[in-house]
Order: sequence, then C-alpha cells, then structure tokens
Amino acid sequence: MDHKDASLQEVNAALQAAQVAYLSYKNISGKKKAEFLNAIADEIEALGADLITTAMRETNLPEARIIGERGRTTGHCRMFAKLVEEGSWVEARIDTAQPDRQPLPKPDIRKMSAPLGPVIVFGAANFPLAYSTAGGDTASALAAGCPVIVKAHPAHADTSELVARAIQKAIEKTGMPQNVFQHLHGKSFEVGQALIKHPLTKAVGFTGSLVGGKALFDAANQRPEPIPVFAEMSSINPVILLPESLEKDFEKTALMLASSITVGVGQFCTNPGLILAVDGNGLKNFIAKLGEEIKKALPGTMLHHGIADNYHRRVAQTLAQQGIKIESESGQKGENNQGQPLIASVSAQDFLKNHLLAEEVFGPFSLIVKCKDVTELNTVIIHGHGQLTSSIIGSEEEISTHKNLLNVLVEKAGRLIINGVPTGVEVCPSMNHGGPFPATTDSRFTAVGTDAIKRFVRPVSFQNFPDTLLPDELKESNPLNIWRYRNSEWMKK
Amino acid sequence: MDHKDASLQEVNAALQAAQVAYLSYKNISGKKKAEFLNAIADEIEALGADLITTAMRETNLPEARIIGERGRTTGHCRMFAKLVEEGSWVEARIDTAQPDRQPLPKPDIRKMSAPLGPVIVFGAANFPLAYSTAGGDTASALAAGCPVIVKAHPAHADTSELVARAIQKAIEKTGMPQNVFQHLHGKSFEVGQALIKHPLTKAVGFTGSLVGGKALFDAANQRPEPIPVFAEMSSINPVILLPESLEKDFEKTALMLASSITVGVGQFCTNPGLILAVDGNGLKNFIAKLGEEIKKALPGTMLHHGIADNYHRRVAQTLAQQGIKIESESGQKGENNQGQPLIASVSAQDFLKNHLLAEEVFGPFSLIVKCKDVTELNTVIIHGHGQLTSSIIGSEEEISTHKNLLNVLVEKAGRLIINGVPTGVEVCPSMNHGGPFPATTDSRFTAVGTDAIKRFVRPVSFQNFPDTLLPDELKESNPLNIWRYRNSEWMKK
Repeated sequence: MDHKDASLQEVNAALQAAQVAYLSYKNISGKKKAEFLNAIADEIEALGADLITTAMRETNLPEARIIGERGRTTGHCRMFAKLVEEGSWVEARIDTAQPDRQPLPKPDIRKMSAPLGPVIVFGAANFPLAYSTAGGDTASALAAGCPVIVKAHPAHADTSELVARAIQKAIEKTGMPQNVFQHLHGKSFEVGQALIKHPLTKAVGFTGSLVGGKALFDAANQRPEPIPVFAEMSSINPVILLPESLEKDFEKTALMLASSITVGVGQFCTNPGLILAVDGNGLKNFIAKLGEEIKKALPGTMLHHGIADNYHRRVAQTLAQQGIKIESESGQKGENNQGQPLIASVSAQDFLKNHLLAEEVFGPFSLIVKCKDVTELNTVIIHGHGQLTSSIIGSEEEISTHKNLLNVLVEKAGRLIINGVPTGVEVCPSMNHGGPFPATTDSRFTAVGTDAIKRFVRPVSFQNFPDTLLPDELKESNPLNIWRYRNSEWMKK
Repeated sequence: MDHKDASLQEVNAALQAAQVAYLSYKNISGKKKAEFLNAIADEIEALGADLITTAMRETNLPEARIIGERGRTTGHCRMFAKLVEEGSWVEARIDTAQPDRQPLPKPDIRKMSAPLGPVIVFGAANFPLAYSTAGGDTASALAAGCPVIVKAHPAHADTSELVARAIQKAIEKTGMPQNVFQHLHGKSFEVGQALIKHPLTKAVGFTGSLVGGKALFDAANQRPEPIPVFAEMSSINPVILLPESLEKDFEKTALMLASSITVGVGQFCTNPGLILAVDGNGLKNFIAKLGEEIKKALPGTMLHHGIADNYHRRVAQTLAQQGIKIESESGQKGENNQGQPLIASVSAQDFLKNHLLAEEVFGPFSLIVKCKDVTELNTVIIHGHGQLTSSIIGSEEEISTHKNLLNVLVEKAGRLIINGVPTGVEVCPSMNHGGPFPATTDSRFTAVGTDAIKRFVRPVSFQNFPDTLLPDELKESNPLNIWRYRNSEWMKK
C-alpha cells in the first residue's frame, strides 16, 4: 500500500499534540504506564497472522525470524512494564535537611529521573518489529514518560501501520492520553529533518546507516536548542582468534562463525565483519573449514533492493582494493535482490593502509585480517574504530597471557564477548548495545535492555519541598516501596 | 606572572602522555583512586595562605569566600574518594547464564561503568578553586578513571599553577601514573580548540559563557569522532513569587532575594536574574523593600575587567529596551571594575516581546517581570529558556492551588526550589546542577554532586567471561562487596 508522506503541517500538528499528551502522560504512575506497555504487547499478539505475513511480504524475512522478532518486541514491552511498575529505575536520591549544620543549614534535597519530552523514533530497516514501531526505542521512551512519534520505515510501512494500530488500541483500552503515540510516514529526507528540527522535539532514537544517523545527529546539534540523538549506526564487530586455541579448535570456531556471518543474510548490526588472526597453520585450517561452510551457504533475499544493491556495490569495492583475496563464496549465484555469502582476506599491513576496509559491509560478508603476530594484531585493534562488540576466541589460559589485548579492546567496544559470536543480543539489564563512535553517537547509553530508558530522562532535584508537593517516588514514607539512595545509603525506605 | 600559551606540539604531547597514563590508570582500584583524591585534598590544604592570597589577588574575591571555596574543593575531592572507595557507583548489573533456556541458551552477561579516556577541563572564571583546576569536573573525571588535562583560566593562572602543583605532589605521593593530570595555559582560542579537536580527547568539561560553551560543543560535534561536551553555560534562575504569600511575606522575601542577588557580586551561575510576580500591593511592597536593600548594597569588584565591562554593557543594553524601568540601584557609584547592584522591572507583555530580556546579565542584576495574573505568569514560564534552577516562593497551600505551575516549571529547570533562593549549591548525591539548554549542553547530566561522575563513563558488557578475566566489580564472589543488580534484584552479593 502506498502511504503519503506527512506534510510539514502534519509534522507540526503531531508535535503540538505530543506536547499536550506529554504534560499529562509524564505524571502518570509507573503502574498505569506498565498497564499500557503490557497492553501494547497484548495487542501486537492480537494482530495474529496478519502481522507475520505482512512483515514477511515487506522484508523478505522468513516466518520463524518474524515470529521470533515479535516475541522479542512483546518481550521488551513487558520488560519495561515490569521496570516502571517496580519503580526503582528513577534513581531516587534523598539528602535530608540538617537545620543545625554550621556554618549554614543544609536544606532537604531529593532527586529523581524525569522524562525529556516528545521523542522521535525512526523505524529501522533490519528490524521491522523489534527496532521499529514498537521497538526498543519506542518502548523505552514510553516507559520513561515521553510521548513518541514514529516515522515508519518506508520499506515496511504496512507492518508499521499494523503495529501503530495495535498501540492505538492499547492507548484506548488503558485510558492513556490521546496522541501519546503517533505514527507518520515519510519516504523523503524532509520529513525526518522537519521532525528533528521541530522545537517541541526533545530527543531522537535511530537505528540505521552511518550516513543517515550522522545527518540526524548533525541536524539535532545545529538546532537553536540542541537535543540528544541516540543513533546506533555502524559496526564491524571484530572477532579475534588467538593462535594456539585456533590450532586446536579451528573447526568448531569456523562453524560458529559461518553461522554468525550468514544468519539473517548478515543483516545485523552485530554481524562479524572482521576476523583478526595470526597467520599460520591454525588460520589456514580455519579458513579452509569456514570456506567450506560459506560455499555451502545459500544466497538469501535481502530486506529490500536498496540494501542488496548496496551490498553488491560494497563487496565489489572491497574486493577491488589492494591485497584483497577472495577466500570463499557461496556456491550458488544469487539473484539481484539477494546477498551472497562471501569471505575475503588481507594482510594486516594492507588493511592498516586502507581505511575503506574498516568500514561496514552490511550483509553476509567478512574480512579476515592476517597478522604476523599478536603484536601486529594489537596494532590493528588500536587503529580500529569504535564498535558495538568485540569478541575473543581462545582458551582462558591463552587469553590470560594476552591480557593486554582485552585492555585495548575494551576501549573500542560496548560489549566484549569471550568464545562467542556477536550476533544474538540478549534483552536484559546487563546488556550494553552501544559503543564508541561510529557504533553510536553517544557511547554512554545503550539501545537494548532496561538501561535504554536512560536515554530519555534527565535528573531533577527538588529542594525544600513539602512532602505533599513531592512526586510519590520521593515522598518521605516511600509509598512506592522503591530502592532509594538516602543519606548515602541504599535502602527501601 | 605571565604564562606562555601551550603550543600545538605541547597540546599533542599532553594528549599522547594522557593516553599512556590512561591505559594504566583506568585499571587502578577504587581504593587507590580514593587515596589519590584524598591526597589532592590534603595537598591543596598544605598550600596554606599562599593559595588564599594568590586567589584573592587574581580574582578580587574576599578571603572568606576563597577559604569557603577551598573547603568546597577539598570537600568534593574527598566525596569522590569515598564514592569510588565504596565502589557501588559503577552500576554493576549481572545476569547469570541459563544454559537450559529454550529455544536458545542464555549466556552470562555482566555490565559496569568504564572510563571514557582523557578529559579536557576548562577552568571557570567565577570559581578559581571549586570549578577550576581541582574543581568538580577534574575530581569527577579522575574518580571515573579518566586522566585530566586542565586548561587554566587565564584570569587566575597563578592560582591554577599552585593547585596543579598540589595535584602533582599527590600523584607522586600515591604512586599514580605520571601525567594522569596535566596543566596547560592558553589565553588564545586556539589552545582550547586544539585540545578539543585532538583525536585522543574523549570528553570535555566546561563552565562559562554561552558563547564559549557553545563554541566548544560545536567543535566537539564537528570532529570526525564526535565527543561529549558537558558545558554549563547560562541561566537566569527565575524566582516566582505567588501573590497571596507575597502580600504577607514581602519583607522576608525581599531580604532573602536581596542577599541572593548581591552575594559574590552576583557572579554565580545560580544568581536569581529574573523575578516573576503578579502585579498588586504585595509586589509593590516587595519592590520597595528590595529596592531599599539594593540601595544599601555596595558595588563590588568583579572577577576581572572583562567581566565588569560585560556587566556594564549588558545592564545598559537591558535598560535601553522598551518598557524597562529602573526600580533601584546601589546608592554608591562603583569603579570601572566594579559591579553595581541594580534591579529593574518590565511588564510581562514587553518581556515576552523581547528575547534579549531573557538572556543572562552576569552580575548583581535582577529583572522583575510584572504579570497581570497567574495565567500570564504561566505564559512567561512556558516561553522561557532552560535553566539550572527555578524557585517558587509561596505557602504550601498557595503552591498547591497553582500546582500546574510546578508541572510547567519542571520542564524548564534542573532543580526546583520552594521558599529558598537558587544560590548555594549543595554538593551531595541528590544535587542536580544541570538543566535544559542553554543552562547546559546536555540536561541528562549534573556538574555537581556524586552523579557528576556519570559524564565521564560509559557502560561495558562482558559476555561469557571466565571469572578470572572479569573486573573485580563483576566477579562472582563480589570481592569488593558492592551493591549489584543481580538477576533483576539489588543485592550486596
């Protein structure tokens, strides 16, 4: 179905409506917000097969993946519901008055997190459900107390419409303020820019390309009043194979990586696009085994033509660089809209000379960098960009002897993995899905897990407030029974 | 003493040295960092009278103020020492493995805060000690595990040198990595820009003017790798006087505000530059009483000539605007380098038409906005900029009948105060010294209090790590005995 781009008038009306909704929504209790978020999950499930088939049609993703993604989406809605119902997430801090303090009395001061205001969320191409309309950005912003305006991703606009209707039903069923969630379409660059530049917009969530995310970030910073943009953009997720362990475990490692490179036609921000290893027999055997697996892997239809075209262009560009050798590719030739698994290799020397090789190739591609030794491998890491993840494959003993690798690696990534692959992002409090630029625009926040809510709140202090005028979270009797940091001690009092 | 500006070579050498220091400092235990921060406090005290007289000479601030500020500086160093020694500030989150989970096993994931890397701190003109060399930015960055390079404020470069030497002594006495703290001079714009643009710089702390802070913010965002800048810039700290309470308490309120407007020659970012009230007898009496006090107040020598010139220029500019009436000024004419207390008034109508009137006049000046009624007062708040603070003076009962004022006010400020003045910023966990732009460049952080450390850290997740390779904060046995969020429960296990 063709959806008309929102006009500038519609963008303005949406922000005005969002602001009205905000002034009441921000005061709604955690319990009521939890009902709302749970109702969103229920209504998404109630869409049934219609949602699955629509998403499959629009994204070419297989049924099992879409069903899994739906589970992830309803899962994070319910996770944030639980978080705000419990309530301690607001980080209440209380310092009681000391009227007799010398030389000056100390007033009563209490602090908690408060929402930022209307948030714009851009639907992500590669997650039609979990990082789009009711995705992690939307769920965390709503949990924080911020109204959300989603700009649907044009490549799955019908899916987005369906989910938007489910959220609308949840608003009605749970008596939320009208327009606490709104949904706009926009194929043009202008709609996104207008949303970001509107003075009532207070924050932005985005998952997509470096070019797209950086453009939004720049626009937001150039506003008369700059606003925070959390853009999750670009990562090649280096996987480091330690030499001794590789000699022994090359087969297991190759199988694990083959699956991680090709899953979902490589269309994950956590796809392992770079493999770093020391040249030698272990690496030779590993490449042979990985090559076998890649040859067996079938080309897969990509999310849309633009993504497939970009993949073919970027693979060709990479293969044309100096010192690049194709190690293996899928034995079956793909169609134009398909991504063909492919692995290539390059020496560390050539890799370090060519910054293009460190840029993301979005799809089932991985580049193996052959290093002379662990020292050269370390140099490659030091010169690398920020990443969402970095992995090390090796025995505990071997990693311990190269502990400095970890010390350097942690500077470059938001999540370190030992003996595992970067794909598969758990949704839980300990997850950090973020990392130094260009992985994201602000390494201090995560896009996944309960702490994603922190992107959309700011602290507010209340000084010398009578108890009746304090928010419940800060009242002396602790009526919500939440954890609070009171006079420098954590307690549920 | 004349201090030479750092050359570009010196800037580069400083960042290279900071990075070397960083790679060892970031792994130093909280206990060792606490020793270092406590030693900084001790060494600052050991500077004795030399520090006091030097700071007095350079800033024209009186002895009592400098002594107070020294206490505040050593106080926050010791506060951060206590925070990192205790250790729970890292927000450890642990989700243990579930190998039997269906359809996929769940890996063990653990997360904690890690330092960002080398931080640049710009000394503040108005706080030669507490927001300069060993100020809140430096102390919180060092506590976070980040090396610091301070660019001394040229107006108190000798004071800055003394404190830098004290920190150097603390480095030596506690065996910290060389160059974990460095000190550069720079009167020119270029030194600051070079520091911010250096690729090894990872974050910036600044307190000063809107123009200065915004220039640093823009430079940081235009880097190939943007970095966070926390700039605390501009605030006029509206004080709202509710009409019924004002009729009764005009005298007490006037005394309280007179003192807040004139303290420290008004050279505080929390100076109450805007007073909003409903026109009537209460306000008339209040202005008369406040006027008396302002007339009695003496002109004071300002921090330096530039600040005095700017104050005179901005006062004259404000007084030349339409509808402005001088209500009172100091009875004594000040010298060129002095700030003369002055209050003026304007109608809400004229105020709303003229954006210049909402801009900060740094010094002992306050503008009273006369509103027809509380509705018009509300309109003035809605159209106002972001602020560090907003205050309401009124009885609990009267505030309760105008609760919507609070609902709107909280959108505009980082700290709300009831029946108190904005000056006097407590250093404690519940303090938020921050606020929406242009008060700061990022309302999600505070510059004062324990949470100031959050500006300089980012979360890092460790997935599937053997216990021996985890940081102590995340080890299974909880050897540091810190509070951790383990499987979604807070515990000291």
